[in-house]
Parts: sequence; C-alpha cells; structure tokens
Amino acid sequence: MSERHFDVSLRELKDKLLVMGGYVERAIEYATQALIEFHPEKLKLVYDIEAQVNRLHKEIDEGCVNLLALQQPMAADLRLIVAVLKISTDLERMGDHAVNIADNSGRYLNGPPLKPLIDLPKMATEVRAMVRMSLDAFVQRAETLAREVLVREDLVDSLKNKIFKDVLEYIKSNTKDIEQGLSLILIARNLERVGDHSTNIAEDVIYALTGEDIRHSPRGDGLKEVLKS
Amino acid sequence: MSERHFDVSLRELKDKLLVMGGYVERAIEYATQALIEFHPEKLKLVYDIEAQVNRLHKEIDEGCVNLLALQQPMAADLRLIVAVLKISTDLERMGDHAVNIADNSGRYLNGPPLKPLIDLPKMATEVRAMVRMSLDAFVQRAETLAREVLVREDLVDSLKNKIFKDVLEYIKSNTKDIEQGLSLILIARNLERVGDHSTNIAEDVIYALTGEDIRHSPRGDGLKEVLKS
Repeated sequence: MSERHFDVSLRELKDKLLVMGGYVERAIEYATQALIEFHPEKLKLVYDIEAQVNRLHKEIDEGCVNLLALQQPMAADLRLIVAVLKISTDLERMGDHAVNIADNSGRYLNGPPLKPLIDLPKMATEVRAMVRMSLDAFVQRAETLAREVLVREDLVDSLKNKIFKDVLEYIKSNTKDIEQGLSLILIARNLERVGDHSTNIAEDVIYALTGEDIRHSPRGDGLKEVLKS
Repeated sequence: MSERHFDVSLRELKDKLLVMGGYVERAIEYATQALIEFHPEKLKLVYDIEAQVNRLHKEIDEGCVNLLALQQPMAADLRLIVAVLKISTDLERMGDHAVNIADNSGRYLNGPPLKPLIDLPKMATEVRAMVRMSLDAFVQRAETLAREVLVREDLVDSLKNKIFKDVLEYIKSNTKDIEQGLSLILIARNLERVGDHSTNIAEDVIYALTGEDIRHSPRGDGLKEVLKS
C-alpha cells in the first residue's frame, strides 16, 4: 500500500465517523423533540437510527484496526486513529442514551403532561450544541472549539441539578405525577451523559491535534504526553 | 527493541489493567456496602480510589499508544492492545458510576432509611460478580467465562426493572420518602450501567481472543472479523 492509499483509507474512516456523528445528532434531536413538541411518532426514528449507529461503530473499529495492522502509522496519524477509535465508542454510547431518552419520552408521552417541562428544553438545546461543537471541532481540527465544549459541561451539569430539584419539588406536592416526574429526571440524567460524551470527544480531538491528554486534569492545565508529532 | 522487550511491555500493561480492575471492583464494593450495611465512612474510600483509577486510565492509554508506535504488533497482539485500550475506558466509566453510586448512597444515608432496600443488595452482588468475571476472563483468557458474563446482563436488567417498579410503588404510598426512593432508583440505574460495561469488557475479551466482534449482535451469533490470527 502506498502512502497515498493510507491517506485515502484514513479519509474514508473520518467520513464514516462524521456520518455516524450525524446520525447520533439526529437521534438526540428526535428523542428530545418528541418529548418537547409532543411528537411521539418521531421516537421510532430514534430506534431506526441506532441500528445504523451500531453498524457504523463496528465498521469504524474494524477500519481502525486494519489501518493499524496494515500500516505503521506514527505520531499524528497514530493519534488520529486512536482518537477515531475512542470517538466512535463515545458516539455509540450517545446512541444508547438517545434510545434511553426515547424510551422515557415514550413513557412520558403516554401519561398526562406535567405543567412545566422546566429547563429540559434548554438543557436539550445546550447538549445538542455540545454534540455539534465536538464533531465540528473534529472536522475543522479546531482546538479552540474543542476547548469551548469543555467549558459548557458545567452549564449542562447545573441545568441537570436544577431540573432534578424542580421536578422533585413538583412531584412532592403533585404525587400523582411521580412516574411522569421520574421520566423527566431520567431524561435529564441521560442528556447529562450525552454532554459528558461530547466532552470526551472534545478531549480526544485535543489529544489528536496536540498530543496532550487533558482527561482527568483541572481544565486548562493539560499534561504533556510523549507522542508529540 | 527486541521481541522480548515487547512481551515485557505488554505484560506490564496487562498487569496495570488488572490493578485498575481491582480498584474498580473495590470502589463498587465500598459504594454499595456503604449503602447496604450503613457504613457511610466507606464512601470516602470510593472517591480516593477513583483518583487512582483515573491515573491508571491515562497511564494505560499512553502505554498502548507507545506500544503501537514503537512496535508493529500484528493480529493477536494488535487485537490485545486495542482490547486493553477499550477495557481501560470501560473501567474508567465504571469508576465514574461508583462515584455516582457513592454520591447517591451518601444522600440516602443522610435521610431516614426506607424499610425495604428491596432487591438492591441482590443486584449489587450480581453486578459485582459480572465485574469480577469479566476481569477473570481477561486474565485467564477464558472465552467461556466471557460468554457467561453476557448471559448475566439479562438478569441484572430484570432486577433493575423490578427495583424501579417496587420503589415507585413504595413512594407512591409513602410520599415523604420520594427523595430516598429516587436515590435508590439512581443507584440501580448506575449499577445497571456497571453491568453494561462488564458486558463490554467481556465482548472485548472475546474479540482479543478470537478476533470475533460480537457487539450489537444477537447473542451467540457473532460476526467473523477480518483479523484472525
């Protein structure tokens, strides 16, 4: 295989990852729209999309292992392939969370709506922005954008805490709505996890671009890694 | 580097993964024991352990990338390194879930205990067995043991569903315990996720041993992959 062939394979792999990311974005969009705009018919789309996400997950992993086996990628290329492996895992988990959100949205939409959906629409918008930004950072090789994702995690966490608190307060005085409230709490929890996975992707993008492994570090104080290109 | 050196590095990496796995096992043990046996003082240990888990996660990832960069591992060795990368990610997430369980156990232990902890102790025991079995399957290179983990996932799922149902029923007629009930539900949810990660590890072990990628497949009907050794 020529160097040229390697570049083609790598581009195909990156394209596939973007297709997968697009699916995941849409799955989260449908799952939350179904809830917020009362469109239960959109939930089926989430389950259909997840099957595609799972298929791509396996194909991308296989592609990465093949590239590692057939080539001897060094430095930046090696980091990129390792990042693609990790990002594909995060996207697959996001797909799982989209399905969990769809399950809970389905249950919620079967019952009487709670008066306030409280901050859930806002949280869903924020999380979807994180997903989009983390993938854009990957496509555009934009470290600054990736770092912006990390900052947003705190906002999403505080929205989740507020939703937990508000829903709890609400169902305490509206006890017939306990089940409905629980669905909203579990949806908020899953949205938070989607945000966490976007953060993981952003960290992987930064690693691929710079060789810096900033996971588990205080923000802005990344550790230098051995593999600088 | 001689072939011999590669084997030494690989063994060191596997040893590190086992140390990490041992930490995670203990974190889950302490987090659930604290809840079940009313030992809030054990919760601090969970947070201490998570710091070690995070440190090892980075060290193992770095070790894998170095091995991939400095050697050209093929077939079985390559699959093993890719599996170690993935298992280390799953263990790190399990550590996060242990912390979530500890957070919720802490909240729960601050309030009045619900009469029945229902099936939580049983679920915790089952999940810990899954964690242990998946790591044993890795150490012993035991495909049969790995496949046994996959079978247990259904039991854990049904325990979680039962806990959700029982707690919901309980708090509906004991509305002052809504917050306590919610903590138990979130703990069950996190335990379920730990079980899911054990399943992921078992799947990675099977992949490392056989080259078969059985993820997202009906159980027992794994797809053949290109990279047979």
